[in-house]
Amino acid sequence: MQYKLSDKVSSLKPSVIREIFKFCTDPNIIPLSAGNPAPEAFPAGEVAEISAKILAERPIDALQYSITEGYAPLVRQLTERMKNKFDSVKENDQLFITSGGQQTADFVVKTLCNEGDVVLVENPSFIGALNSFRSNGARLRSVDLQEDGIDLNALETALREEKNAKLLYIIPNFQNPAGLTTSWEKRVKIYELCKKYGVMIMEDNPYGEIRVAGEDVPNIKSIDEDGIVVYAGSFSKVIAPGIRVGWCIAPKEVAAKMIVCKQGSDVHTNIWAQLVADSLLRDYDFEAHLSRIRSIYRGKLQLALDTLEKNMPSDFTWTRPQGGLFIWCTLPDGIDMLDFCKKAIENKVAVVPGNAFLVDENVPCNNIRINFSTPTDEQLVKGIEILAKTLEDMR
Amino acid sequence: MQYKLSDKVSSLKPSVIREIFKFCTDPNIIPLSAGNPAPEAFPAGEVAEISAKILAERPIDALQYSITEGYAPLVRQLTERMKNKFDSVKENDQLFITSGGQQTADFVVKTLCNEGDVVLVENPSFIGALNSFRSNGARLRSVDLQEDGIDLNALETALREEKNAKLLYIIPNFQNPAGLTTSWEKRVKIYELCKKYGVMIMEDNPYGEIRVAGEDVPNIKSIDEDGIVVYAGSFSKVIAPGIRVGWCIAPKEVAAKMIVCKQGSDVHTNIWAQLVADSLLRDYDFEAHLSRIRSIYRGKLQLALDTLEKNMPSDFTWTRPQGGLFIWCTLPDGIDMLDFCKKAIENKVAVVPGNAFLVDENVPCNNIRINFSTPTDEQLVKGIEILAKTLEDMR
Repeated sequence: MQYKLSDKVSSLKPSVIREIFKFCTDPNIIPLSAGNPAPEAFPAGEVAEISAKILAERPIDALQYSITEGYAPLVRQLTERMKNKFDSVKENDQLFITSGGQQTADFVVKTLCNEGDVVLVENPSFIGALNSFRSNGARLRSVDLQEDGIDLNALETALREEKNAKLLYIIPNFQNPAGLTTSWEKRVKIYELCKKYGVMIMEDNPYGEIRVAGEDVPNIKSIDEDGIVVYAGSFSKVIAPGIRVGWCIAPKEVAAKMIVCKQGSDVHTNIWAQLVADSLLRDYDFEAHLSRIRSIYRGKLQLALDTLEKNMPSDFTWTRPQGGLFIWCTLPDGIDMLDFCKKAIENKVAVVPGNAFLVDENVPCNNIRINFSTPTDEQLVKGIEILAKTLEDMR
Repeated sequence: MQYKLSDKVSSLKPSVIREIFKFCTDPNIIPLSAGNPAPEAFPAGEVAEISAKILAERPIDALQYSITEGYAPLVRQLTERMKNKFDSVKENDQLFITSGGQQTADFVVKTLCNEGDVVLVENPSFIGALNSFRSNGARLRSVDLQEDGIDLNALETALREEKNAKLLYIIPNFQNPAGLTTSWEKRVKIYELCKKYGVMIMEDNPYGEIRVAGEDVPNIKSIDEDGIVVYAGSFSKVIAPGIRVGWCIAPKEVAAKMIVCKQGSDVHTNIWAQLVADSLLRDYDFEAHLSRIRSIYRGKLQLALDTLEKNMPSDFTWTRPQGGLFIWCTLPDGIDMLDFCKKAIENKVAVVPGNAFLVDENVPCNNIRINFSTPTDEQLVKGIEILAKTLEDMR
């Protein structure tokens, strides 16, 4: 059969990262490419303990159908926590459970955009979200990212030019892939600009709680008195990604439609995982757990930065994140980026080519993304040394 | 803020069933409304045993990110099983894991339909799938269902008239809500018609393995030499729905795009649940488990049919399913269906109003759907007795 595929999927390609990820099941490859949290940060013992208790005491609760909005006690706990700790649940907001942060991107674009409507995104940005928007027929327009967040002039130009812009997608903390954090001043201005042009904001914050240096910057959601921000939270980096549990905070009217979209997709999030997350927050010292994993990430990030400093030539540069999982590197002039990535793989180190994070991946790009959470300390050091050697060999 | 929602979600309403479901958390209501499998059919002990072993021996495998296509050993097992037992994986097909059967509906419509393209559906049909198609901007056209499957003349008329028809959605076994099964002869003719008009088929088969009487009818997928069938399987009724694990079999070209849609939605299915399902299929006698649950459903179905026979007047009629979870009932002339449902709830019995399963729920409808798997035997008998009494009181 000659398949007639929809316009929105015709040009869709699998995420380079997830494709490289498959490749990384080869144990001989040092994975500086994935976005995997450090396995030693997982509360594996606690999850086993909680799971055993649930499956012994109330197995049906963990196995039967549940409601789309999520397990009510978990929804209540998260609502309280997001309200009290981050002032991020406003009076007209509803919090519901998602199967990971990315589901928020899927449902918010479905709820706000007709085919051809525009989503503004940071340049570079998280490829998973970009693909999510594309697969729902949205057109993407990128706005350059600066050290302290999106370029405000370019954002206003884009807002003025794109009459069908419906959503701005940003990752304000330790952005994926750039590792940069949007300053408080810029957050306020981004909010005001979007409000002025009647464009909603999706604030994606999977890394906010793994800050390892500097001061917390309040969420954009905390100033959302106008109900224009849809906030995506996730347990992937603070509990474990395999359980696929996140949450979304959105104005009730928007949340109601997103929840119907979820009914029509996976019906509800795996309920065992919701019960486990609920108990971890309720019966254990979650703040102590966060401190523990922050100290793991602090060590790994510092090791990565120190090893880059020690091995890389002065014309190879990189960002200095204060949290998250990623460092964004710029190759020296004259080094072909894709060529470098290929040679790195031949030398058994996987990194992600920077153009994977661009709206148009054919635009010239001399960046790569390095992840420091997945590899062991030994792999991290060896991997960066190999990258330095690869670079040297290419000169 | 005045929200401008997308056209596709503007008219979306929450599933009546899932709304009634919330209501059914009231323990005083007899739930003849849900689609919940019988809790006593869950392999709760086995799940607890497997889960404990996994979380003790290889917790990181159950907690870390995984690949979108699903856990490879589970994919291989299911591929073998669907091939050997049902001849339902053709040479050009790929099987991948979904977060429940309904995710197949979400991704197949996204992959095949532009906004405004048409999905043909049985009348009545499963509301979850209808909402899934709607939330992706498809237009629905319904084709009446007869005792032995969809009306072939009406189907051909629809195929002829709807130039933008891209997909036929059917549930051939123990259809939800009607409880009817499409005959082998009709399956072949449906396949030929769709092939003739270049329209793909989504064969949704969540109930096929819980046949309790009569002979198995082969899947439409088993004759799919042309690669026009996308098959949705699910563990919801044969293991447990709370784990949210299903699978999709689709021609590789279509599967590739559906998998990218999944990457952009929930990234991958909860991996703990996939490991549990994999072990249940591998390390336990899954066929014996199926026999055991079939005997539970056989008893419950028979009890429901006997109780209806004993209590209902001759002008109240119902289908006699050979499996699945549902009985479709027709109220006597002159009884207002919605009024009946309201009075039933007042009398503490929940049923689903039949119009919830129509493309246009304002079309006159005198049907209700009864589920016999969720209530206990006592509740089932008492519930049907109350429905009979409610009817009597309304005359």
